[in-house]
Amino acid sequence: MKNLKAQLKESFNIVFNDNDLLETAFTHTSYANEHRLLNISHNERLEFLGDAVLQLIISEYLFSRYPNKSEGDLSKLRSMIVREESLAGFSRFCSFDTYIKLGKGEEKSGGRNRDTILGDLFEAFLGALLLDKGIDSVRTFLNQVMIPQVEKGNFEKVKDYKTSLQEVLQAKGDVQIDYQVVKESGPAHAKEFEVAVFVNQELVSRGVGKSKKIAEQKAARNALKELSEE
Amino acid sequence: MKNLKAQLKESFNIVFNDNDLLETAFTHTSYANEHRLLNISHNERLEFLGDAVLQLIISEYLFSRYPNKSEGDLSKLRSMIVREESLAGFSRFCSFDTYIKLGKGEEKSGGRNRDTILGDLFEAFLGALLLDKGIDSVRTFLNQVMIPQVEKGNFEKVKDYKTSLQEVLQAKGDVQIDYQVVKESGPAHAKEFEVAVFVNQELVSRGVGKSKKIAEQKAARNALKELSEE
Repeated sequence: MKNLKAQLKESFNIVFNDNDLLETAFTHTSYANEHRLLNISHNERLEFLGDAVLQLIISEYLFSRYPNKSEGDLSKLRSMIVREESLAGFSRFCSFDTYIKLGKGEEKSGGRNRDTILGDLFEAFLGALLLDKGIDSVRTFLNQVMIPQVEKGNFEKVKDYKTSLQEVLQAKGDVQIDYQVVKESGPAHAKEFEVAVFVNQELVSRGVGKSKKIAEQKAARNALKELSEE
Repeated sequence: MKNLKAQLKESFNIVFNDNDLLETAFTHTSYANEHRLLNISHNERLEFLGDAVLQLIISEYLFSRYPNKSEGDLSKLRSMIVREESLAGFSRFCSFDTYIKLGKGEEKSGGRNRDTILGDLFEAFLGALLLDKGIDSVRTFLNQVMIPQVEKGNFEKVKDYKTSLQEVLQAKGDVQIDYQVVKESGPAHAKEFEVAVFVNQELVSRGVGKSKKIAEQKAARNALKELSEE
C-alpha cells in the first residue's frame, strides 16, 4: 500500500485521509473470503458507489460536450465508455492491477489480469475517492485519466472484432471463419462461455465471456493479435 | 409556467435562474414535434442527465443508510426506488403532471397520466435542477420528496400484484385466475402489450405495459382496485 499511496500522490496528486478506505477499494472479495477470521472489508460496496459517480460525471461531460446529440446517442456513447473492458484498461493505465489484493486461487487463475476484476477495481477506487474527497476530486481524476481518451474519439467507433477479423482475413483471399462454443460453465446468474474461432477448419484462438457474443468478440480479438504477431 | 414557478418556490424554495431550462424540462417530445417550426427543445436530454444524478444520490444515501447490506441488495433496493412507476408517483406528488406540455395526440390518449411520461419528467426536472443549481440542490430536493418515502420502507417490499390478487381472491374460496395477452402493438423497439385478467372465466380488468410481465402486474393491480371498490 505504501507504493500505491506514493504513486497516487505522484501521478494524480491524490492523498487519502482515510487509508483504510483506500485499502478496502483494493481488496477483492476473494482475499476477504480467504481471511474471513480477520473480518476484512472488500470492495464490492465501493464499486456500487463508484459505478454511480462514474455514470454521472461521464453523463455531465457528454451532455455539455455534445449539445446536439440525442439522448439515445448519448446513452450509447456512455455505455461504450463505462463498459468493463474500458474500465479495466484504465485500471491498467493507472497500474492499479499491481496493487489489488487477491485470494490465492484467484491469483493463480490469472485474476490480476481479468477485465471483470480490474473494471470493478476502477469503480471501487472512484467510490473510495468520492467518500474521501468528494465529487470534484473524482471529476478532476477522471479529467486526467479518462476524458483525454474520450476526446481522442477512442469510444465512438464500436470495436467489432469479428468484422475486423473478417476484413483482415479476406484481404488475403477467400476464407471460412467459424465460431463454436466449446465450453459453457457456471450457474445461471454467472454463466461463462468459451468460444473457439476456426479459420478454414483450423483452430486459431479462443475467447471467454459472460455471453456467447462477448466470447466471440474476445476470440476474434485474440485471433487478430495472433495474426499481427505472425 | 407562472404557476409552476410559484409552486416550486412555495413547496421547495426552488427559484430557477434559467427559466428556459425549466420550460425544456416540462416539454415532452410530442409537443416539440407538433411545433417543429418553432424549434422548441424537449426534455429527453435532460432526462439522460437527471437519471444519472438520481442514481448517484440514491446510491450515496443507500450506501450510508445500510452499512451492512451487500452490493447486490443495495442494487436491488435502488432499482425498486428509481423505477418508472415510483418516479411517476413522485411527479404526481409534486403536481408536475399538471404542468407538462404534451402534443395534442398524446394529451388525447391520456399521456398526462402515463407512467413513462411522468417518470421521465421527474428525471428531466432533476437534470434541469442539476444544471441550474448544482448537485447539492438536487440532494436537498430529493431529501424532501423521495427519501421520506424510502425511510418508511415503501420500497423494501416488492409489490407483486399478481401474488396479492391471488391471496385476496383465494381468501374468498377457490378461484381460477387467468392472464391473457389481448393486444400486442407498436414497433419492435417500442412494443406495447395489453393483458386481460379473468377470474373464473369472467373478465375483471386489463393492464397495458412494455412487456407481458408489466402488463400482467398492471392488470392485477387494476383488479385489486376494482375489488376494493366493490
